[in-house]
Amino acid sequence: MPFYEPTTKDIDFVLHDVLKVSEQDIPGFDELDRDFTGAVLEEAGKIARDVLAPLNTVGDHQGCKLDNGVVRVPEGFEDAVNVLRDGGWTGFDCDPEYGGQGMPYTLSIAVGEMHSSANMALMMYPGLTHGCYAAIHAHGTEEQKAKYLPNLVSFKWGGTMNLTEPQCGTDLGLIRTKAEPQEDGTYKLSGQKIWISAGEHEMAENIIHLVLAKIPGGPDGIKGISLFIVPKFMVNDDGSLGERNAVSCGGLESKMGIHGNATCVMNYDGATGYLIGDLHKGMRAMFTMMNEARLGVGMQGLAQASVAYQNALAFAKDRIQGRAVTGTKEPEKAADSIIHFPDVRRMLMDQKSFVEGGRAFMLWAATMIDRSRRNDDADAEGMVSLLIPVLKGFLTDKGLDATISSQQVYGGSGFTTEWGAEQFVRDCRIALIYEGTNGIQALDLVGRKLASDNGKHVMAFFELVKTFIKENADDERMAEFITPLKAASKDLQAAGMYFMQNAGKPDDALSGAADFMHLFGHVCLGLMWGQIAKASYAALDAGNCDTAFYESKLVTGRYYMTRKLPETAFLLQKVQAGGANVMGLDVANF
Amino acid sequence: MPFYEPTTKDIDFVLHDVLKVSEQDIPGFDELDRDFTGAVLEEAGKIARDVLAPLNTVGDHQGCKLDNGVVRVPEGFEDAVNVLRDGGWTGFDCDPEYGGQGMPYTLSIAVGEMHSSANMALMMYPGLTHGCYAAIHAHGTEEQKAKYLPNLVSFKWGGTMNLTEPQCGTDLGLIRTKAEPQEDGTYKLSGQKIWISAGEHEMAENIIHLVLAKIPGGPDGIKGISLFIVPKFMVNDDGSLGERNAVSCGGLESKMGIHGNATCVMNYDGATGYLIGDLHKGMRAMFTMMNEARLGVGMQGLAQASVAYQNALAFAKDRIQGRAVTGTKEPEKAADSIIHFPDVRRMLMDQKSFVEGGRAFMLWAATMIDRSRRNDDADAEGMVSLLIPVLKGFLTDKGLDATISSQQVYGGSGFTTEWGAEQFVRDCRIALIYEGTNGIQALDLVGRKLASDNGKHVMAFFELVKTFIKENADDERMAEFITPLKAASKDLQAAGMYFMQNAGKPDDALSGAADFMHLFGHVCLGLMWGQIAKASYAALDAGNCDTAFYESKLVTGRYYMTRKLPETAFLLQKVQAGGANVMGLDVANF
Repeated sequence: MPFYEPTTKDIDFVLHDVLKVSEQDIPGFDELDRDFTGAVLEEAGKIARDVLAPLNTVGDHQGCKLDNGVVRVPEGFEDAVNVLRDGGWTGFDCDPEYGGQGMPYTLSIAVGEMHSSANMALMMYPGLTHGCYAAIHAHGTEEQKAKYLPNLVSFKWGGTMNLTEPQCGTDLGLIRTKAEPQEDGTYKLSGQKIWISAGEHEMAENIIHLVLAKIPGGPDGIKGISLFIVPKFMVNDDGSLGERNAVSCGGLESKMGIHGNATCVMNYDGATGYLIGDLHKGMRAMFTMMNEARLGVGMQGLAQASVAYQNALAFAKDRIQGRAVTGTKEPEKAADSIIHFPDVRRMLMDQKSFVEGGRAFMLWAATMIDRSRRNDDADAEGMVSLLIPVLKGFLTDKGLDATISSQQVYGGSGFTTEWGAEQFVRDCRIALIYEGTNGIQALDLVGRKLASDNGKHVMAFFELVKTFIKENADDERMAEFITPLKAASKDLQAAGMYFMQNAGKPDDALSGAADFMHLFGHVCLGLMWGQIAKASYAALDAGNCDTAFYESKLVTGRYYMTRKLPETAFLLQKVQAGGANVMGLDVANF
Repeated sequence: MPFYEPTTKDIDFVLHDVLKVSEQDIPGFDELDRDFTGAVLEEAGKIARDVLAPLNTVGDHQGCKLDNGVVRVPEGFEDAVNVLRDGGWTGFDCDPEYGGQGMPYTLSIAVGEMHSSANMALMMYPGLTHGCYAAIHAHGTEEQKAKYLPNLVSFKWGGTMNLTEPQCGTDLGLIRTKAEPQEDGTYKLSGQKIWISAGEHEMAENIIHLVLAKIPGGPDGIKGISLFIVPKFMVNDDGSLGERNAVSCGGLESKMGIHGNATCVMNYDGATGYLIGDLHKGMRAMFTMMNEARLGVGMQGLAQASVAYQNALAFAKDRIQGRAVTGTKEPEKAADSIIHFPDVRRMLMDQKSFVEGGRAFMLWAATMIDRSRRNDDADAEGMVSLLIPVLKGFLTDKGLDATISSQQVYGGSGFTTEWGAEQFVRDCRIALIYEGTNGIQALDLVGRKLASDNGKHVMAFFELVKTFIKENADDERMAEFITPLKAASKDLQAAGMYFMQNAGKPDDALSGAADFMHLFGHVCLGLMWGQIAKASYAALDAGNCDTAFYESKLVTGRYYMTRKLPETAFLLQKVQAGGANVMGLDVANF
């Protein structure tokens, strides 16, 4: 039976030793001292370990059931959601004006990682509700905000995002759901939406659906899409619930993982909806929170890798099999535990170096979102917008690799349901797909973000790396981090240069987009490991007595720098190979 | 609903254009002309497409059920097995003396690939039976052979291999199943075996279990293991079935994939068994057919990649979404099909170049097994023994990657059960684990095979690559294949050199074992693509009118040479990084 052990210590290290959050000049961050964040993380960690994690297998095995239009979630889910609600976790980073706790986004992501590690499927219910909250908060009228936000913040009501239809997901210009204007200013929505996470359940009194639809006679394609609020139960002016609206769950998707989450077919049969945001500007309204949403999915990839690694590590320490090649390590046992075998160690180090570096990357990006929001800092906004596709794509691609590698540590046990390793793989798998497939992330990165504001943000990123390299050039101990980072960063620049030189040949550029995204991700993790190493040396120099912790960071970082980061050269080579061989085969000849 | 389209055309190309099997000096291969193999493959392909493939989803959804000691297989499985039995496919490469068809192993692998693509779980029932047949054929007495083989060949009886116990899989020295000698020369076996594929079912009248067990008082560890034949029903001297033996299925494993195959807990409660092979030499007897067994698993990895690719390709041609960056490709549709997008094309080319190159590698290795068997050729035996861990590890690791990449092509549909892409991933996953995990393959390669016979076989492999390079050095058209192959081969030699120079430091060598296995695999596929290119140019030069087919091979090969093969430099770098960072972290500090 898998377990989850909170990663509070490592999060604390990243927040305070590496990112030094409480010293950052961001409103609200001054409160984030070690004591405060420690207390929050400890409490959040307990819920993760004791409340959410024990339901992860239950959720996977039971799944959700559609019973006469009503979705039954797995046993225990409602109680667990109540714990989150009662503790104020569902409104953790929400606006205090509507009952939220107003905590920095960065801290909410730290909490979110642990909760998502413990139970990804369950956390999607409040997760989607948060997305709905954020869109209404950004685009709703004062009246709409007053009407919906407090109950979304408290999770008294749930929320959903309705984009996909059977014929379109990525290309929303093809949607067919219609919104017919009524005389009273409302709309009647008709159509079918699919893959609606948390689309229907009874853990909340009401569900607020945000739905993309087209008003007949509007512009074609993406420019004619508007966003609507469609409540499951109509909301009276006094806030009480009225009649059931004409929206219903028409089916549950049978899927590879996240069985505990209800993935619904939603049917709109003349359902009453309210326009939110500007007419025909629905895409903009839906995607306002895109950075947060995509960071959240990257976080899921990392979170699954983290819990998978923990369990694989415990198995590797426990399982005995054969003797170490360098001689018996545990003579008291009939065989040595498999952690003594180099290939098992390699797999564990792959996972560990990814999880710890990825966590730093994620929390760093989160601080930039806070900075952009709280300081209205356009540079931070630009930089994080550039990094978001990298973060989403890299943390989920490599997160899946890590779950597969964790599963491999178990040998045959990893394939059985009993040990739970295979669930982490299946749950993690969706993170590469939803919220824009990783191919779409790569396209966004190369096709839009790289050149946005005349390349200002990518130049700022290079500058940041260069500054770090320069600052540490004279520290001999740092050479084993700085030298490979320099090489990797040079590869990234060369790849960027290739795109600039081939801007007129989009097939050449886009053929290498996924490789470029990985190249970029490696450089980000290389930079993080450099910063982690620096922070670790600083702690050791300062006489911090937890030497094992900091020295482990250095070993793990060296692993990343010597065995993972150098992939950048190969990735550059693929980028520079262009599109000829990728696009060379006629479609008819496949 | 997924489909399977037989790969007969490509197999035919590999057998005749690339490997020129009928010209090889191997007894029985002269029969393998194009007409003959074409007829066999066509028939086998029809069964794959029409009989086996339609049951693949059924098997996954229904799984097996244990009902009062009886295992119920999914609907339709028994009928399908009867088709294989009636067509003589279960004894296709078996000894004609016992009713087999005596076909070359190479051709049986070609057939096996298609059948395994169509339904991996179902094919494991005859697959395990074949393993049991092979062990009895190699080690049984004449009496045992006469008693068991004809019914195993015809699949009137099934067969199994019983190795793993709860406390041990990889390290069989730890097994506890006891075999107590009886006065009549038989043994009474007691113990529990787990993960026994096809351990119990009613598709055959009897099941012959091969069981590893220890005779009390024998040597400790691996040297005290013997192999026993334990029939489910006792077999009378006249061949009729007698009493039920004391062996029973105690449970079915719940697992990630291959749900259609019964993975059984087998309980031996004083079951009557017969020693097969020499006393205490059970490991040797069980593993005689290791090359074939491991090639068979590598084949499964390739087969799942092949069917996954086919389905992803069909989806990519059909699904419309957005417009191609270089301008509209299909103006008659509301959007272009996604195959026009470079990142989708990249994924498809990754899969295609792996599947086609891997197929050639697999069939080439199979010819060496035939050569070693039929010509008693020790060099062929040595070479294929060297390549088997590469083949098993590389084709399953990369096979899984290909299934995941195929799934990614579908976007959200890939995560749903309905489209079937996710089943290919789940089924393929086991191939990296069983028959020796891929870590064990890497260990076998670096720790044993590389240095076996004083490195004679690896030198022969290098010679073979060198000869191919030299033979084509003057052909300008071949330069784009030869140049990268030369570079990759140099990387492989350098990695081999590293191991030689660090033979005394096993942790250094074994830390890079998995990377070396991949490096070796790439060189094998590079060599195959070189040979495929040469064969394609030869066909084009000869005026073969199927120019599209051969030109497609060249494009696909160039893709592999420019975008996959160059990974060898990175893999070499990891090998040369040694063990310091891999083994540097104390176990206590993880």
